[in-house]
Amino acid sequence: METTTHPYWPRNLSLPGYVSNVRPGWQCAGAVAAAGAGLLALGWALNRNERSPVRRVAAGWFLVCAGIHGVLEGYFSVRHRELPADTGLLGEVWKEYAKADSRYVTSDDFTVAMETVTAWAWGPLSFLTFVSFLSRHRSRFVLQLIVSLGQLYGDVLYFATEARAGWTHSDPHPLYFWVYFVVLNGVWLVVPSALIIDAWNHLCAAQRDHDRPHKKGH
Amino acid sequence: METTTHPYWPRNLSLPGYVSNVRPGWQCAGAVAAAGAGLLALGWALNRNERSPVRRVAAGWFLVCAGIHGVLEGYFSVRHRELPADTGLLGEVWKEYAKADSRYVTSDDFTVAMETVTAWAWGPLSFLTFVSFLSRHRSRFVLQLIVSLGQLYGDVLYFATEARAGWTHSDPHPLYFWVYFVVLNGVWLVVPSALIIDAWNHLCAAQRDHDRPHKKGH
Repeated sequence: METTTHPYWPRNLSLPGYVSNVRPGWQCAGAVAAAGAGLLALGWALNRNERSPVRRVAAGWFLVCAGIHGVLEGYFSVRHRELPADTGLLGEVWKEYAKADSRYVTSDDFTVAMETVTAWAWGPLSFLTFVSFLSRHRSRFVLQLIVSLGQLYGDVLYFATEARAGWTHSDPHPLYFWVYFVVLNGVWLVVPSALIIDAWNHLCAAQRDHDRPHKKGH
Repeated sequence: METTTHPYWPRNLSLPGYVSNVRPGWQCAGAVAAAGAGLLALGWALNRNERSPVRRVAAGWFLVCAGIHGVLEGYFSVRHRELPADTGLLGEVWKEYAKADSRYVTSDDFTVAMETVTAWAWGPLSFLTFVSFLSRHRSRFVLQLIVSLGQLYGDVLYFATEARAGWTHSDPHPLYFWVYFVVLNGVWLVVPSALIIDAWNHLCAAQRDHDRPHKKGH
């Protein structure tokens, strides 16, 4: 029988070199929430030419995603092996989140692969999407579709692999399982789905326009 | 030490209930190749209004994908647990392919999750993409982008998870590792990447058109 000296599930998980977090959990969660809210506000402020408040929030969403994918998930993608002993702020954020999914402190193959693509592809592309909406660039809805589909597919596989593993990696406490694992990740099912439908509508309208035989210059 | 009575790697893999294939490997590979070629020819024949041969092949590609995702990967998604003892044609096709990646005979969590999404989402959407090109529907390039990005991301994760597992699941024989595993799956990196760029160009051109301020009716 393995001695349990860490807060992760399953309780018999072996985690050599684990060091307890210095910060309380609410500070880790609060730091991420504050950074996210700050990016959303910055995105809103920078996008003052956009009249529709929904579009303005949608553009801000991509700045939030750029920050989360690029910084938080970027950190995970390069430092996942050292996380159990990490007591820096970003390391402790991941060790707090890992109570809801211990695959983050064991360098689980799928989790590392998916997070690496998220950090290095969807992160920069989220930032490009934000910039493309600021400048009304013609690529804006194509980028919105690419990023949102990437996020949705990654998230579906994230839930599906954990379902197949029998939901064994989360502390069953409602804060960890329901709030952190289900609700937080559920946001990346709901919002990208809505943005895929939105991009679909805009791109189909543009293509219908483009296909008209009697249009000037075509 | 496990006794090895199957052809899969790693050689010490335990596979209770395994039954040898009745058909030789070339019949399994030949059946899939013939079905794929038949679908490509059918797609070409049905799309006689398309003047560009490249576009005509591209549309046929989506009919091939609909068949592979819907039938072959659909079979895997519902029958993966029974594969080791399966001696039907589709079962033997998978048991032959599993020499190149034994995750297919062990119901590996990521493989089952990814293949299930591929079968039930990218399969029907591939067929819709084919139909949308036949009818020049305004959704055709949006569908091409969605299917191709889904295939590319799934395939990247497929290679990345196996890389993280140390390439341990393939028979090192060149036919299995290089031809089946690398080249065959590599096709779904190369073709979808080209089709993503193609869809990007078409959709951006349509959006640029749509955004023009002086256009009639807008």
